[in-house]
Amino acid sequence: MLKIAIVGATGIVGQQAIVSLLNHPWFKITKLAASERSAGKSYREALKDSNGSSRWWCTEELPDEIAALPVEDAANFDPTSVDIIFSTIDASAAKVLEPKYALTTPVISTASAFRYESDTPILVGGINMEQAQLLASQQQNRGWKGFIAPKSNCTIAGLVVSLKPILDKFGVKQVVMTSLQAMSGAGRTPGLSAMDMMENVVPYISGEEPKVETEPQKILGTLAGESIQPATFPISATCTRVPVLDGHLVCAFVQTEKPCSPETVKEAMVNFGKDFSALGLPSSPLHLIEVTDDPFRPQPRLDRERGGGMTVTVGRIRKDPIYENGIKYVCLAHNTKLGAAKGALQTAEYLVKYYLKWL
Amino acid sequence: MLKIAIVGATGIVGQQAIVSLLNHPWFKITKLAASERSAGKSYREALKDSNGSSRWWCTEELPDEIAALPVEDAANFDPTSVDIIFSTIDASAAKVLEPKYALTTPVISTASAFRYESDTPILVGGINMEQAQLLASQQQNRGWKGFIAPKSNCTIAGLVVSLKPILDKFGVKQVVMTSLQAMSGAGRTPGLSAMDMMENVVPYISGEEPKVETEPQKILGTLAGESIQPATFPISATCTRVPVLDGHLVCAFVQTEKPCSPETVKEAMVNFGKDFSALGLPSSPLHLIEVTDDPFRPQPRLDRERGGGMTVTVGRIRKDPIYENGIKYVCLAHNTKLGAAKGALQTAEYLVKYYLKWL
Amino acid sequence: MLKIAIVGATGIVGQQAIVSLLNHPWFKITKLAASERSAGKSYREALKDSNGSSRWWCTEELPDEIAALPVEDAANFDPTSVDIIFSTIDASAAKVLEPKYALTTPVISTASAFRYESDTPILVGGINMEQAQLLASQQQNRGWKGFIAPKSNCTIAGLVVSLKPILDKFGVKQVVMTSLQAMSGAGRTPGLSAMDMMENVVPYISGEEPKVETEPQKILGTLAGESIQPATFPISATCTRVPVLDGHLVCAFVQTEKPCSPETVKEAMVNFGKDFSALGLPSSPLHLIEVTDDPFRPQPRLDRERGGGMTVTVGRIRKDPIYENGIKYVCLAHNTKLGAAKGALQTAEYLVKYYLKWL
Amino acid sequence: MLKIAIVGATGIVGQQAIVSLLNHPWFKITKLAASERSAGKSYREALKDSNGSSRWWCTEELPDEIAALPVEDAANFDPTSVDIIFSTIDASAAKVLEPKYALTTPVISTASAFRYESDTPILVGGINMEQAQLLASQQQNRGWKGFIAPKSNCTIAGLVVSLKPILDKFGVKQVVMTSLQAMSGAGRTPGLSAMDMMENVVPYISGEEPKVETEPQKILGTLAGESIQPATFPISATCTRVPVLDGHLVCAFVQTEKPCSPETVKEAMVNFGKDFSALGLPSSPLHLIEVTDDPFRPQPRLDRERGGGMTVTVGRIRKDPIYENGIKYVCLAHNTKLGAAKGALQTAEYLVKYYLKWL
Repeated sequence: MLKIAIVGATGIVGQQAIVSLLNHPWFKITKLAASERSAGKSYREALKDSNGSSRWWCTEELPDEIAALPVEDAANFDPTSVDIIFSTIDASAAKVLEPKYALTTPVISTASAFRYESDTPILVGGINMEQAQLLASQQQNRGWKGFIAPKSNCTIAGLVVSLKPILDKFGVKQVVMTSLQAMSGAGRTPGLSAMDMMENVVPYISGEEPKVETEPQKILGTLAGESIQPATFPISATCTRVPVLDGHLVCAFVQTEKPCSPETVKEAMVNFGKDFSALGLPSSPLHLIEVTDDPFRPQPRLDRERGGGMTVTVGRIRKDPIYENGIKYVCLAHNTKLGAAKGALQTAEYLVKYYLKWL
Repeated sequence: MLKIAIVGATGIVGQQAIVSLLNHPWFKITKLAASERSAGKSYREALKDSNGSSRWWCTEELPDEIAALPVEDAANFDPTSVDIIFSTIDASAAKVLEPKYALTTPVISTASAFRYESDTPILVGGINMEQAQLLASQQQNRGWKGFIAPKSNCTIAGLVVSLKPILDKFGVKQVVMTSLQAMSGAGRTPGLSAMDMMENVVPYISGEEPKVETEPQKILGTLAGESIQPATFPISATCTRVPVLDGHLVCAFVQTEKPCSPETVKEAMVNFGKDFSALGLPSSPLHLIEVTDDPFRPQPRLDRERGGGMTVTVGRIRKDPIYENGIKYVCLAHNTKLGAAKGALQTAEYLVKYYLKWL
Repeated sequence: MLKIAIVGATGIVGQQAIVSLLNHPWFKITKLAASERSAGKSYREALKDSNGSSRWWCTEELPDEIAALPVEDAANFDPTSVDIIFSTIDASAAKVLEPKYALTTPVISTASAFRYESDTPILVGGINMEQAQLLASQQQNRGWKGFIAPKSNCTIAGLVVSLKPILDKFGVKQVVMTSLQAMSGAGRTPGLSAMDMMENVVPYISGEEPKVETEPQKILGTLAGESIQPATFPISATCTRVPVLDGHLVCAFVQTEKPCSPETVKEAMVNFGKDFSALGLPSSPLHLIEVTDDPFRPQPRLDRERGGGMTVTVGRIRKDPIYENGIKYVCLAHNTKLGAAKGALQTAEYLVKYYLKWL
Repeated sequence: MLKIAIVGATGIVGQQAIVSLLNHPWFKITKLAASERSAGKSYREALKDSNGSSRWWCTEELPDEIAALPVEDAANFDPTSVDIIFSTIDASAAKVLEPKYALTTPVISTASAFRYESDTPILVGGINMEQAQLLASQQQNRGWKGFIAPKSNCTIAGLVVSLKPILDKFGVKQVVMTSLQAMSGAGRTPGLSAMDMMENVVPYISGEEPKVETEPQKILGTLAGESIQPATFPISATCTRVPVLDGHLVCAFVQTEKPCSPETVKEAMVNFGKDFSALGLPSSPLHLIEVTDDPFRPQPRLDRERGGGMTVTVGRIRKDPIYENGIKYVCLAHNTKLGAAKGALQTAEYLVKYYLKWL
């Protein structure tokens, strides 16, 4: 069993990382780290709120052996004490701490701090595994024995998975999209106000659209020597927040290079990702994409848990009336599973087996 | 005071029509009609549910003098007993009954039955008042003393109001839009299930997208003799249902003919509709459009009641990254006020004063 | 494997029964029956809505082998074709059909039709298993080879489980309670309106309070020859509906016969039900009751799935300021699991093993 | 016009106080004060959030003339610059600042700091106006020219209004109650988390039950010389939080001294408060209590705005099965209107006219 540390363990993404790793066949959580305020306490103590309740926010129960682990100070954490570091700290802390860890140890990160570095891939399971080779450049450039492998923005997880088979088969000329994003994406400290979200929609998410309009091109780009040649299609996005707990829904309008039809797009999606699924990574779903013919689906509450929260559900594939080669559809991805902790874990599994070759 | 009958009075739109007409300076409800089942009862009795509660769904209190009115059978209703008929029955009943009424009496209708007839305009306050002249052709063609003036689909009300100043100033080449629609649009008999809508989004509304993709072009078209030359820009829409009571939000991506910028679009919107507002119709708002600079607005719960539910709120006007001449924004309209009963009432006010010249 | 038929299979409780029985170690669903309208179709066909969506409402996927089963007509169903019948039809149909089935076959019922018959126990797992003996009188009285064993009202499931250890140890003098009930209790055809339940509470549930005020005394009564001597404490209830999907919360105020304290009540609850859990029935939880010290719990969304939806969570145990021997607490039970299909299944498991002795 | 200062103007209760005072016939807001952080800014500036949105949380628009007022530092506010101070600061600040203001100026307070002082009444409009005389003792004891008149806890507002006619006519022996409280009661900084309240109930509100179990007895007590003799009936309460914006619902179980029936209780409630309403105070409703016969009412969303948010709606009055002289019912009060700013304003109106005799 490989030893994993969760750094940023008290936050909501850290908690979800813990849940994702329970009973994992390859990895065992041996260390937890967080900010100085929590350091020195047991994990259970560190989660205790001043009003007597617990800030353990997952519905899965916190196992006693994790609860009893001491929380170390992330700033002084010894990365050589574990095999892999799962970093769920925020971007500004990540900028400082992750390079320190990466000197000696592979870092899988949910933060955005290194996503836009030219020697750093944004790996999404089954989409751009060949870009993992860029980590060798990263290691060499920076003199690291470890590396930093960041996950993508959570909103685009479903978009890039659904776009990849379209890109491969038909080419993509442009994408217009509106996201209806779940509240869990805003975190918990303090996260969104109940008074704001009740019976309401908020049509703006700070800083989200610029990420959504640029990350997919990098993820769907091609590895060209020591950097990635981004895909060239433009994206225009409007990102909104809706009163849903988990599951980001994206309404996509895609113009393709070559002619396509709802039938051929469906076929491409249904057949997509079989090679990757066949690797049998512990966190991978049987199907990267499921296509539903029920016109009322996908729905966040009903479809987000498909494939253990790792399958993207696509529905309503239909012709776009504007473009000759246009298609529109709705896709749903679990933002805190595929789009965050569990997606990052799947990347960790891939890298351990096929890049590090430790298994 | 002109005498008005509400036909379809027991339904939710009929109830909203009643509320819109309370204390109206020109119109007085003197008759109510509904299906045979309700005929012969007092309105209060007709609304009584088998379990003892009332099917009066508006938060405004039902006035005693309306509650005491007898409900007549819509099928045998005498249209000459009133000056104007406000028809809120469903499309199939409207197809049969509205022409009977129109033989003698002007009919303002919230149904879609006649929207697509070539001699029938879809009037939206302040947008296409010149199309009211088409009613003369309708009257002549059909030998009616009255007429049928249908309101538009509720989802596009905000879209066409916000598009009109863009069309006038910059021209419109194409529109891509995603709607996040309130639950009241689905009516009440039985309407949406609480189990379906709780903590969820439903990405489909039966029959909605075809209307949304074609009605705006007719509304924004030009009167050419005895018919309307529709605007030629295509629209591609995805219509979704969100857990909101009232207020349809539309995320619009508009490509214009001529160059535009967020500033010039905002200016065009802010200056729009002053002539129409200056008419001082009782149901008209002071501003047809209000533009907000708060990036988190418009929000359905906070902004739907602006201008008595008759003002469209536009926010997040920004450059579209795909097109040279592209703009995107979010707009909100109250679907059961501007988009239904109160919007139809505003049309009635216009027609009474400027087409019929009864005032 | 014992063969089970689900009668009423297309309804929501029938669907939940199917889910409860997936991968069951003792029982295999071999037959499905429903009303005449569904008869003759495959189950998948019978669930198809006119608008193209499926009326399968559970989040668990419908297995293909169940979907392919033909639906038989409940009115003509041959009860000898299975070992056990799981009846989830409504009370009026149950009154007629369940006795026909019971002539030959044991019937586990979620309907209220036979709950109040003097020779019929209302069995709740771990609470009144000794009352199962009353089924022998029922069989003899009515000349049935089978029997009818109805489940309790869903609202009181959590109440009776939490009251039983108090009754045993301290005696109960009276109970005042307010329930905050989930929407799933109202079913799906059509169930509650989204417009009614959004941002709202409905302080009444038709027919609920009389059941809540009388069933617990029968369940917690003592078997006296051929009938049950009900417990004598009175209950006063107010039942309300809150915008929650699953999980009925009860705020209980209990006056006991003998002195009690929060500590002794907690101890009695924590130690309760070990004998029953030790039977290891497939649907039984490890703990019939879990007591939480977090003052903000139990919460429906966070605690309803404890013990696979079969554990009652109790919190906020504290002294009642009115009575010398008074205690108050909050308890939560999953209304569609413990309180319905899965609770009934647990009863079936008990009866098959300890009353019928088939295993 | 009397000059009013709102101290605590940037908080949600302060904002609601402003809204309550718009277009008031007797009072004019001339000063605003808040914490040091806001001091020196215009009110509009003080409300501006770092992310560009406004922290004005009311749906009513903020009038420009209020927005332009300078915010003063509450700690150095000159109370002689106004006629009346409306204090909406929190309890700890109130403890220090309100006595300073009261040296010279009447203070109407929404804080709990002085509620439990023996020379301070908790005035509730129409319930205990005779207790206003206690303010004379307060002024004399403390050497104040002004006074401090605190409002009650928001949860009990509906309870005490509904109990008063029962107490007067039948006597009250004990009260058991469960509250289902709206989220606005938790304030806005930060208030409740959307992730906690979605599809959920939280069965605990810190510090609420002790207030609920003791304040009503003081309010419903009798003035005895220089203090109040509290009513002697005990109250047992469970306070819960439900996903509702405004409107606290209380399920009450009341045992009376003398025999009562649903009919006689209803009659007492319907006839209650006519003398007080007849005073015609600007914020008073026509009816202090409205009794509904619809078994599904009162509902928070539908009934909270009755009487401008100042009427208590009572429903479901029925016999309690436990007690000979027992009655149970459900009552609803608007927690931020009757239960907070507007209720305090009504008290101010009463005191200005009948205690201070300034009008």
